[in-house]
Amino acid sequence: MKKLINDTADVVSEALVGIGAAHADLLRVDLDKKTIMRADGPIQGKVALISGGGSGHEPMHGGYVGMGMLDAACAGEVFTSPTPDQMEAATKAVDGGAGVLHIVKNYTGDVMNFEMGAELCQAEGIAVEAVVINDDVAVQDSLYTAGRRGVGTTVLAEKLCGAAAERGDDLQAVANLCRKVNDQGRSMGMALTSCTVPAAGKPTFELGPNEMEIGIGIHGEPGRERMELKSAREIVAMMSEAILSDLPFESGDQVIALVNGMGGTPLIELYLIYNELNQICQARGITIARQLVGNYITSLEMAGFSITLLRADEEMLVLWDAPVHTPALRWGV
Amino acid sequence: MKKLINDTADVVSEALVGIGAAHADLLRVDLDKKTIMRADGPIQGKVALISGGGSGHEPMHGGYVGMGMLDAACAGEVFTSPTPDQMEAATKAVDGGAGVLHIVKNYTGDVMNFEMGAELCQAEGIAVEAVVINDDVAVQDSLYTAGRRGVGTTVLAEKLCGAAAERGDDLQAVANLCRKVNDQGRSMGMALTSCTVPAAGKPTFELGPNEMEIGIGIHGEPGRERMELKSAREIVAMMSEAILSDLPFESGDQVIALVNGMGGTPLIELYLIYNELNQICQARGITIARQLVGNYITSLEMAGFSITLLRADEEMLVLWDAPVHTPALRWGV
Repeated sequence: MKKLINDTADVVSEALVGIGAAHADLLRVDLDKKTIMRADGPIQGKVALISGGGSGHEPMHGGYVGMGMLDAACAGEVFTSPTPDQMEAATKAVDGGAGVLHIVKNYTGDVMNFEMGAELCQAEGIAVEAVVINDDVAVQDSLYTAGRRGVGTTVLAEKLCGAAAERGDDLQAVANLCRKVNDQGRSMGMALTSCTVPAAGKPTFELGPNEMEIGIGIHGEPGRERMELKSAREIVAMMSEAILSDLPFESGDQVIALVNGMGGTPLIELYLIYNELNQICQARGITIARQLVGNYITSLEMAGFSITLLRADEEMLVLWDAPVHTPALRWGV
Repeated sequence: MKKLINDTADVVSEALVGIGAAHADLLRVDLDKKTIMRADGPIQGKVALISGGGSGHEPMHGGYVGMGMLDAACAGEVFTSPTPDQMEAATKAVDGGAGVLHIVKNYTGDVMNFEMGAELCQAEGIAVEAVVINDDVAVQDSLYTAGRRGVGTTVLAEKLCGAAAERGDDLQAVANLCRKVNDQGRSMGMALTSCTVPAAGKPTFELGPNEMEIGIGIHGEPGRERMELKSAREIVAMMSEAILSDLPFESGDQVIALVNGMGGTPLIELYLIYNELNQICQARGITIARQLVGNYITSLEMAGFSITLLRADEEMLVLWDAPVHTPALRWGV
């Protein structure tokens, strides 16, 4: 295992210190609770948004904390859920009196621990709503999950709901928007290589020199099919078909598209993939109205990518364009 | 070779189409000349900035085209210099009457071809200045270079000089600033793995399962030393020492720091590295006044990182903070 780390036990803590130091103008880091918070929070009267999950998916979620997006992100160990006391502490720390929305990716540990954290806070009178994101069309159940996994739509939900909270929407409205985003978002991923969890010390899985895995999860969980490597054109066609036929997306739809690198894929390949996706959407009468191309929800150093499409109404585009100021997404400010 | 591409001959063109489609609001792409330009250019009366070089280092340089940074970027094939006619066409296309600055990384082919492009334009009466960036402290001469290579300081020079041009500085002033940035910037890189150039089809070099290469170039050119993998703390200490003692940086200095991933290094490791660098700077009385942590000048999917430090005066910090709107760097707008 070749990693740029010190002790495997300190990876998450030391990275959190680095994030805090690099973005001291935006963030404060509670090292004890492994939680990243807005430096200017809690914001009185604003619905607060929290997400979190295992580390190793950076910039998600800590990179999305800041004005117009999350109020806090709870970090677990690499690919390990954060604990209920982290979510409890974060919820209390960010609540500005208007309630707190938990945006939870659908992994069994995350869902359970967020639920327990929410109950502890609700018992003390804090209004908490939770929305579980389950946008991955690849498989129904998987190694870490009952039902569909939560992947790229999470990033889009955090942006859109963060903007809604920032303009003053109430907890029910922000939670309903989050459910709508989840309902209208679909994703699928693939991998060329495995990643290696530092504490495990060896690759999560093995792929042959000419193999790829289609439909893989963000922890290297098995996908739909292991097959011989194909051209980018064929791969994007396969994945787009699975995504587009699932909602289904239709001619006339406008979408927000995320072409996401898994951590070890060069940006030049991601733009080549975006070109393929854009052509497919055009041919079907679907307009990509907004897009992100880059590393937004990663699996350590895995080579591969995922596509997320969100059917977006005008309201969502307004929220997308609203100012955001986080380490990983920034515009309008 | 596992790559997310179609035909190796089409990688650069197809990626350029993808970049143009994803950022149609900011950029226009001349596919014939493989050049990315500001959509709103040429800007009359503004000094124009051009850079360029081999592809495979994305987001450099195409990702830095836009308001407050570059006016055009010429793309060569992967790790291959663009040709003089590309620089000539780009220079003519962006000139708004105030002259054009060429920001050139010190690689023999780039320097030669930019020079020829400049001469062709000067013969037609366009004022062209060129500044060669040579900030890599690792080795004096290398596979592609006489003298020191141009690496991370290029990104910082493009930002700072772009801001100076945007506020109306004249060609001499912008060129002098670029020389000053180059004089005060130092970089060094390392790799855990090789990258694979698509057209070559096999890794540029081999590293053993417990080896790293210190001082490597952005094309995988050999560095200072191949040695057994060490801890992040030891690696950053070694690289920082080489950088800090070279200028030398001194107690009381404030710097702009770039902790740059080579393309295959997870962001969690880059933040851990930033923490080590920040501690070393603090211990020496050097203040990191601004920073970037992420993939800014890459070597395809190489695992590894580089550190760039630029001794910055107040003027440079003002230029750093000025608005910028490009695919890869955006703030203030």
